[in-house]
Amino acid sequence: MKGKKKLEIDVLNNVPNRVIKCLDQGFVSFVDTMPRLVPEEQKTSDFAIVQAARVSYGNGTKTVNEDRGLLRYLMRHTHTTPFEMVEFKFHMKMPIFVARQIVRHRMASLNEVSGRYSVLKEEFYIPEMENVKKQSVLNKQGGDETLESKEAEIYLNKLKDFSDSSYDFYKENLVKEVSREQARMVLPVNLYTEWYWKIDLKNLLHFLCLRCDAHAQYETRVFADAILELITPIVPLTIEAWNDYQEYRGAIKLTRLEIDALKEAFKGEVKVPHINSDNKREKQEWKEKAAKLGLVVE
Amino acid sequence: MKGKKKLEIDVLNNVPNRVIKCLDQGFVSFVDTMPRLVPEEQKTSDFAIVQAARVSYGNGTKTVNEDRGLLRYLMRHTHTTPFEMVEFKFHMKMPIFVARQIVRHRMASLNEVSGRYSVLKEEFYIPEMENVKKQSVLNKQGGDETLESKEAEIYLNKLKDFSDSSYDFYKENLVKEVSREQARMVLPVNLYTEWYWKIDLKNLLHFLCLRCDAHAQYETRVFADAILELITPIVPLTIEAWNDYQEYRGAIKLTRLEIDALKEAFKGEVKVPHINSDNKREKQEWKEKAAKLGLVVE
Amino acid sequence: MKGKKKLEIDVLNNVPNRVIKCLDQGFVSFVDTMPRLVPEEQKTSDFAIVQAARVSYGNGTKTVNEDRGLLRYLMRHTHTTPFEMVEFKFHMKMPIFVARQIVRHRMASLNEVSGRYSVLKEEFYIPEMENVKKQSVLNKQGGDETLESKEAEIYLNKLKDFSDSSYDFYKENLVKEVSREQARMVLPVNLYTEWYWKIDLKNLLHFLCLRCDAHAQYETRVFADAILELITPIVPLTIEAWNDYQEYRGAIKLTRLEIDALKEAFKGEVKVPHINSDNKREKQEWKEKAAKLGLVVE
Amino acid sequence: MKGKKKLEIDVLNNVPNRVIKCLDQGFVSFVDTMPRLVPEEQKTSDFAIVQAARVSYGNGTKTVNEDRGLLRYLMRHTHTTPFEMVEFKFHMKMPIFVARQIVRHRMASLNEVSGRYSVLKEEFYIPEMENVKKQSVLNKQGGDETLESKEAEIYLNKLKDFSDSSYDFYKENLVKEVSREQARMVLPVNLYTEWYWKIDLKNLLHFLCLRCDAHAQYETRVFADAILELITPIVPLTIEAWNDYQEYRGAIKLTRLEIDALKEAFKGEVKVPHINSDNKREKQEWKEKAAKLGLVVE
Ligand SMILES: Cc1cc2nc3c(=O)[nH]c(=O)nc-3n(C[C@H](O)[C@H](O)[C@H](O)COP(=O)(O)OP(=O)(O)OC[C@H]3O[C@@H](n4cnc5c(N)ncnc54)[C@H](O)[C@@H]3O)c2cc1C
Ligand SMILES: Cc1cc2nc3c(=O)[nH]c(=O)nc-3n(C[C@H](O)[C@H](O)[C@H](O)COP(=O)(O)OP(=O)(O)OC[C@H]3O[C@@H](n4cnc5c(N)ncnc54)[C@H](O)[C@@H]3O)c2cc1C
Ligand SMILES: Cc1cc2nc3c(=O)[nH]c(=O)nc-3n(C[C@H](O)[C@H](O)[C@H](O)COP(=O)(O)OP(=O)(O)OC[C@H]3O[C@@H](n4cnc5c(N)ncnc54)[C@H](O)[C@@H]3O)c2cc1C
Ligand SMILES: Cc1cc2nc3c(=O)[nH]c(=O)nc-3n(C[C@H](O)[C@H](O)[C@H](O)COP(=O)(O)OP(=O)(O)OC[C@H]3O[C@@H](n4cnc5c(N)ncnc54)[C@H](O)[C@@H]3O)c2cc1C
Repeated sequence: MKGKKKLEIDVLNNVPNRVIKCLDQGFVSFVDTMPRLVPEEQKTSDFAIVQAARVSYGNGTKTVNEDRGLLRYLMRHTHTTPFEMVEFKFHMKMPIFVARQIVRHRMASLNEVSGRYSVLKEEFYIPEMENVKKQSVLNKQGGDETLESKEAEIYLNKLKDFSDSSYDFYKENLVKEVSREQARMVLPVNLYTEWYWKIDLKNLLHFLCLRCDAHAQYETRVFADAILELITPIVPLTIEAWNDYQEYRGAIKLTRLEIDALKEAFKGEVKVPHINSDNKREKQEWKEKAAKLGLVVE
Repeated sequence: MKGKKKLEIDVLNNVPNRVIKCLDQGFVSFVDTMPRLVPEEQKTSDFAIVQAARVSYGNGTKTVNEDRGLLRYLMRHTHTTPFEMVEFKFHMKMPIFVARQIVRHRMASLNEVSGRYSVLKEEFYIPEMENVKKQSVLNKQGGDETLESKEAEIYLNKLKDFSDSSYDFYKENLVKEVSREQARMVLPVNLYTEWYWKIDLKNLLHFLCLRCDAHAQYETRVFADAILELITPIVPLTIEAWNDYQEYRGAIKLTRLEIDALKEAFKGEVKVPHINSDNKREKQEWKEKAAKLGLVVE
Repeated sequence: MKGKKKLEIDVLNNVPNRVIKCLDQGFVSFVDTMPRLVPEEQKTSDFAIVQAARVSYGNGTKTVNEDRGLLRYLMRHTHTTPFEMVEFKFHMKMPIFVARQIVRHRMASLNEVSGRYSVLKEEFYIPEMENVKKQSVLNKQGGDETLESKEAEIYLNKLKDFSDSSYDFYKENLVKEVSREQARMVLPVNLYTEWYWKIDLKNLLHFLCLRCDAHAQYETRVFADAILELITPIVPLTIEAWNDYQEYRGAIKLTRLEIDALKEAFKGEVKVPHINSDNKREKQEWKEKAAKLGLVVE
Repeated sequence: MKGKKKLEIDVLNNVPNRVIKCLDQGFVSFVDTMPRLVPEEQKTSDFAIVQAARVSYGNGTKTVNEDRGLLRYLMRHTHTTPFEMVEFKFHMKMPIFVARQIVRHRMASLNEVSGRYSVLKEEFYIPEMENVKKQSVLNKQGGDETLESKEAEIYLNKLKDFSDSSYDFYKENLVKEVSREQARMVLPVNLYTEWYWKIDLKNLLHFLCLRCDAHAQYETRVFADAILELITPIVPLTIEAWNDYQEYRGAIKLTRLEIDALKEAFKGEVKVPHINSDNKREKQEWKEKAAKLGLVVE
């Protein structure tokens, strides 16, 4: 099971900066990872995925290039369990409304600061002016457009004042000996909270698919992007494969209806037909996908 | 696998009232359960636990009394997987700070109202005066003592005003077309949210252990208690066994140190010695446990 | 939360035959599902998915047609949590080597017959002659070709004898009072085992993607196919959407490399170029995918 | 978030021997753990539990002694999430019937050798003579008594022959080009299999409770004991607390019925009464528990 001791390096040293500031007062700090010590030859933690996968085939280590091939194969064919073999732990500080979204990813372990056991700090998220978004009318989620700067300024000033006054009220309650757990009821969801968060690579990639995506809320995306940046030098081959083969990244899923439309087009017609659906949204999605393929839906 | 069709009843009819109001504006509504149709003879869903457990022994149905015996055996010996065979689904409305505690129970499925897709309703939790708790000095959590009524009144009035003004600010932001997802940042955690919540009996009992317990926050306990009330007529034998054999309920766990102290006492000495520990808290815990056994620690 | 009582039907009555025989002695029996009672108007359990999803948008029931639209939207955009709201329970009997594959799906609950507590039955899986597969040379898994019938006959006869003799040895051990748990060590993995198996629709669809697929072992596929057949009348709209939008079903995933190749082709060239990769397998995969789109890779 | 770089040691060096042989041909090999590099001052991974727990209280590092106090508090009060922060990875080889028990612990990640992709090795578990157990008559599980040595010898010789002949049959099938996945159907469950297995400390302790226990099958216990031995020098304070406070270890759970019986006894009566139950088994359990407390139930 073990040959002679190979030289190992601390893979966290691959990461130039282990703490990334997020929003105005938040951060993601890279606390730990498994494997931590990786063979000098492989340099990254991609090897640990391949190591576990190889047990299936009953054979041992191979060249770095063959490792890359296998890893890409696993990603392409969604053989996901070997990606569970790599683990990450972060210390994070984010607004409550962001934490409320991240906590929904159940395949993670976390410990959060308690508003029952300790006095919460006066730290509120106040967006930068260029990040105050205007409500989209088309799209149910917050749009990409920015609020007009004057309006944004008014909003931000009021937000600051409001946050301050909520904290004043909180402190006042504490002074009056209202129990901490009830005193904190007045704190708005832009208050910062913090936690330790541990997750394996398989489930983290799933998280990043959903939360680095344009449909995710901007503020949550900032944290997801920071995490992606932190882990890329740890598992570079995995991230490369993920970008090549994963739907929310570089890949595209063609539905049965879209395949039918495409086939029709390939039968020699110049024009790409619309899909056989009367659903407006679905038709629009096809247009956008076709554009990514360099096609124009008539 | 199937004999002749037995008569079945809708087990939800065992529940006199499927909706329990919680706090001032919240509720737990019992949406569904599996099994839903139970044999008329058994009347409750306890049978489904026993049915799955019996597959282990390679034999079929027994009398109701033998069922009870097996069920109690399973509970006593923490054979937990058969309890996963019963499922519950609730519709709940609770303050955000309560939801934040419940969501930590990852072995549940949920769908929550979204502050990104819809406009949140003006519903804030305002405690009743007798439930405004005073911060305990001994205990890190909120104590059992109630805040003096004048203080409480001031707090509650201000809480109402503050909640109103936060909602006004929210509405104003919406009017100014700040995106919904950002506009809601100002809403405090006493705002009500709602969700569908599905969980199996095994994990629900674990939840109830932790959240019906005195260490849980009062407001969360109200919801846990409501759920316990709702499910008791569905699985009465299970709840009976759980109350008899489960630590947070009727049972007590004696630590190795406490067993040693007890043994010492039984050697004929009248007095019950303290445990062999210099940890104040642990010694105090022993005193309390001993009292439950009818003993006095010297 | 409740209007006047709507008429409800037992959704299990949608299933013409609740037990499907699998292989020579196995079966899948549909024990229960949640919801069990569904509104007469909706007729199927698809409504329960939509019901939970709608809580996100803060609004109530809609027409059956709008339900279908939302459900298809959820499937297309992998909003998976509402699909967790539907639950299934099966009683299954399958060979140990099949059980060993199914048990790997951790997001399920199960209770299995125990070789420690009970005497295992003399039931071994003997394939039908046309299902004895020849080892593929290209493919690591068992190929699609059938073993020549004479060879197959010899194999099957010996398999029967061998299975018999293993059971004789087992019985002999029991007679000699070797503990049951050790006596059973001699039983080969074509012995049948049985269990109760409970899983939600989200995780079941994931299971069916992987196990109804051509890459799954034939014997396991038989069980997956039976389950798919059983649940289709319970959630027909979901299955329709799944077949239209899901990768392992009617949809296709185009990788970044394939998209690039396709774009190149659409620039007016007649020929479809190979992808920019020197990986033989990946190139082959592209050929096959292109064929499904009605294209020929040069 | 970071002070000046502290000295760190490789915590795996705490483990004198990273590979423990189990049964005749199996093993547990300690592949990796997180944290891997621990502060020289703390020396063990216990600190990582405390580090995560402390975030709840909003404060930083403490003395080693205070760490121990907190850790013991967490264990005593089943605050389990901080124990999820420590992770272990093992390479294991064990008989299929043992693997079938371990795989039931779903909160672990694993990759197993595949009988579809590779040719399985000729490695069968043959117990040592003193470990051939006699079936207990009282107890449904295998008893503690050993089979008479002559009987055992016959059994073992036949087991060896039978295992050999099953492997001969397997090889013959492969030669005849029966697909690997079907050829392996004849292999009995005493064949060895291997896998990589990753699990966090919280779930591993749960596993160890159940599988180091006397009720677990001997062969599985051997693996659980090996794992316990391997991790003890990594998290010694946790294991100490676990032995002191955990039910399956040094602690005892008194049921409501037993508490009542005990209280009765303490009212001055000399004799300890039986519990108020007509369940034979439960009464027997009380006798055994009482004995552990130094009491005799009349
Ligand atoms: C009185 C009280 C005080 C608390 N104080 C705090 C606090 O200050 N800070 C804080 O952060 N939390 C606190 N909590 C929350 C607590 O840490 C748990 O998150 C919560 O009780 C859910 O418990 P659970 O993990 O056992 O349940 P579930 O999440 O439902 O899990 C049940 C079991 O499933 C397994 N499991 C599920 N998901 C995973 C996974 N992703 N990885 C590994 N195993 C998994 C585990 O075996 C787990 O025990 C407190 C809880 C209580 C009751
Ligand atoms: C853009 C966007 C919008 C969203 N809008 C809403 C909304 O309006 N309302 C809302 O409620 N949520 C919303 N969500 C949250 C979403 O429903 C999921 O809760 C979240 O994305 C986590 O995904 P997950 O369940 O796949 O991940 P995880 O919880 O990490 O689970 C990963 C996988 O593990 C399995 N799993 C884990 N735990 C369980 C369990 N207890 N039971 C069964 N299987 C389990 C499942 O297979 C699951 O796919 C939104 C998410 C995104 C990205
Ligand atoms: C002595 C002994 C005898 C046994 N006999 C039998 C037998 O005869 N038949 C038999 O079938 N099994 C038997 N088992 C296996 C037993 O039923 C459990 O499957 C096994 O012990 C794993 O326990 P677990 O579910 O607590 O662990 P895990 O699967 O690791 O789960 C840990 C916790 O996570 C949560 N969890 C994880 N996954 C899920 C999920 N998908 N859904 C809901 N919650 C989840 C639960 O809260 C669970 O308690 C036996 C076990 C022992 C120790
Ligand atoms: C064709 C084929 C070939 C295979 N070959 C092999 C092989 O050679 N060797 C082998 O070992 N296996 C093999 N498998 C099994 C495979 O690795 C998976 O174990 C199996 O498909 C179950 O998939 P899953 O993990 O996605 O499902 P589930 O276990 O049901 O999990 C669903 C999701 O829940 C989450 N989840 C659940 N439990 C955990 C947990 N404890 N930790 C983290 N996340 C969790 C994950 O997000 C996961 O994707 C093969 C499977 C197929 C279909």
